[in-house]
Amino acid sequence: MAGGVGGSRFARGVRRAFPDAELTIIANTADDITVHGLRVCPDLDTIMYALGNGHDPVRGWGRRNESWAVLDELVTYGVGPSWFSLGDRDLATHLVRTEMLAAGHRLSAVTATLANRWLSSDPLLSLLPMSDDRVETHILIADSAAPGGRKEVHFQEYWVRWHAEPEALGVVIVGLDAATPAPGVIDRLAKADLILIAPSNPVVSIGPILGVPGIAEAVRQSSATVIGFAGILGGAPVLGMAHRLLPAIGVAVDAASIGLHYGPRTAGGVLDVWTMDLRDTSTAPAVEQAGLRVAVADLVMSDPDATAAFVHCAVKTAWP
Amino acid sequence: MAGGVGGSRFARGVRRAFPDAELTIIANTADDITVHGLRVCPDLDTIMYALGNGHDPVRGWGRRNESWAVLDELVTYGVGPSWFSLGDRDLATHLVRTEMLAAGHRLSAVTATLANRWLSSDPLLSLLPMSDDRVETHILIADSAAPGGRKEVHFQEYWVRWHAEPEALGVVIVGLDAATPAPGVIDRLAKADLILIAPSNPVVSIGPILGVPGIAEAVRQSSATVIGFAGILGGAPVLGMAHRLLPAIGVAVDAASIGLHYGPRTAGGVLDVWTMDLRDTSTAPAVEQAGLRVAVADLVMSDPDATAAFVHCAVKTAWP
Repeated sequence: MAGGVGGSRFARGVRRAFPDAELTIIANTADDITVHGLRVCPDLDTIMYALGNGHDPVRGWGRRNESWAVLDELVTYGVGPSWFSLGDRDLATHLVRTEMLAAGHRLSAVTATLANRWLSSDPLLSLLPMSDDRVETHILIADSAAPGGRKEVHFQEYWVRWHAEPEALGVVIVGLDAATPAPGVIDRLAKADLILIAPSNPVVSIGPILGVPGIAEAVRQSSATVIGFAGILGGAPVLGMAHRLLPAIGVAVDAASIGLHYGPRTAGGVLDVWTMDLRDTSTAPAVEQAGLRVAVADLVMSDPDATAAFVHCAVKTAWP
Repeated sequence: MAGGVGGSRFARGVRRAFPDAELTIIANTADDITVHGLRVCPDLDTIMYALGNGHDPVRGWGRRNESWAVLDELVTYGVGPSWFSLGDRDLATHLVRTEMLAAGHRLSAVTATLANRWLSSDPLLSLLPMSDDRVETHILIADSAAPGGRKEVHFQEYWVRWHAEPEALGVVIVGLDAATPAPGVIDRLAKADLILIAPSNPVVSIGPILGVPGIAEAVRQSSATVIGFAGILGGAPVLGMAHRLLPAIGVAVDAASIGLHYGPRTAGGVLDVWTMDLRDTSTAPAVEQAGLRVAVADLVMSDPDATAAFVHCAVKTAWP
């Protein structure tokens, strides 16, 4: 289970660690947004490009050798949103997706078609959206000009436009309650040997996936071993804005608290093992006391080999 | 009244000839097509770019300094049609149009918004689509594999993909009978001093405009002088494929026959003056005999000055 930028790095590391395993990536789609009439699925695309070696490794999202002619023109036309960067190469993906969705195809089928270009050299790898239903995360922020002094903005606006600077007063995942898991999701979870929860944002990446009705239950009931990975290292996220959103759901910004938030399967949670960074060792006992096994490793995803190393370490803790 | 490539050259010449006149261009929209989910209006855009000095003068259509990153990607995805060239800069225009149409705006309002970027330095110039309704030209061609041995293809497919090589057995302008003139069209025709019919294709450019119910009648009833310009010079079109389509509507491929096809207003047609190229002088008497005044000039639109010169010449014939 993975979000976008961090999730894609994690997935590359998992692939490096287990190159011959049947690997299914269940991606968050609650970051999805419609801009300029195009349906954009940032996490699906980031993962697809990264696993297909077409990503921009410096930015972490979007396509390598990207150009921006269309966006320049849209800005010249004065058509917003100007804060959402659509590269030319990336835009082609959205055109294909939007046209296929408009023709009645489900997001999972569209994703399979797009992934066919990027991932076909790895036939044991598959990429599934968490759901075919429209789910979009909104962040509640203070706005003195709005009625009631607060307003909801799309997660992309909160993050890309406002750089997560406004305090998040709440997180509303529109459509989540009514969503159903995409075809294959429940089956893969049930049949898996190992379920890995990426060190992605617990609020807006992993949270929505586990929030699709049926998915957390499938994780709980699976015969797989479930291993989670902390994205908070030494009290701060390596990537993204989890530290700005965790308070909105009442979770402290530290690795142990997130492990306890996911919780042990033995007590209604989703984890068997929680993997924390070396610098968070001191908080491990509290996690173990709650019923989780703890793996400790250097969790900096500096490259796929480094990521593969900590994945191996965590799996060894799970399967000694 | 104008089509795309030739129509835009003509319109630039008219603007050069009468820089201070109130000039309204009524553009053909029957070439319009939806590709990759985007609504493309080739004639409107060609005129808009050309009059706004953003066109590619060599190709005659599309944007100057164009790039093709999106199209390259679409081809790599294997998503057709690959024969329709969508440049990156041009594509932004279609994105804005498609999103505005989807939001419920009429094509004329969308066109005004887009033109605001390109034509605002010339406040006496306006660009109107012939109609806000969807009208699309299809060409009937032979196809031994199709039921009945013939099939209809969109005009763009006939021209761009098949280079007008298959014999045109018929021309079907879908939606034309039910179309209504766009806001402003009838009013501008009624109030004009001069109505100029560009040397555009009589079958698929001028034909659809005059075919919108109400437009030909407005031309006939206008107090303006109506001058038409032949696009067939010495028996062949300078641009485009009129010679491939005129036979399908029973009109011979020569300038005089097209003038007679449009016909004099005194006999139910739309013209007062018909302008023919110098090399077609020998056929002028037949046109005059039918009741049209004839202007003769060098009709090669080599540059805006050359076009302005023949426009002046024709107007002098009309208003001696």
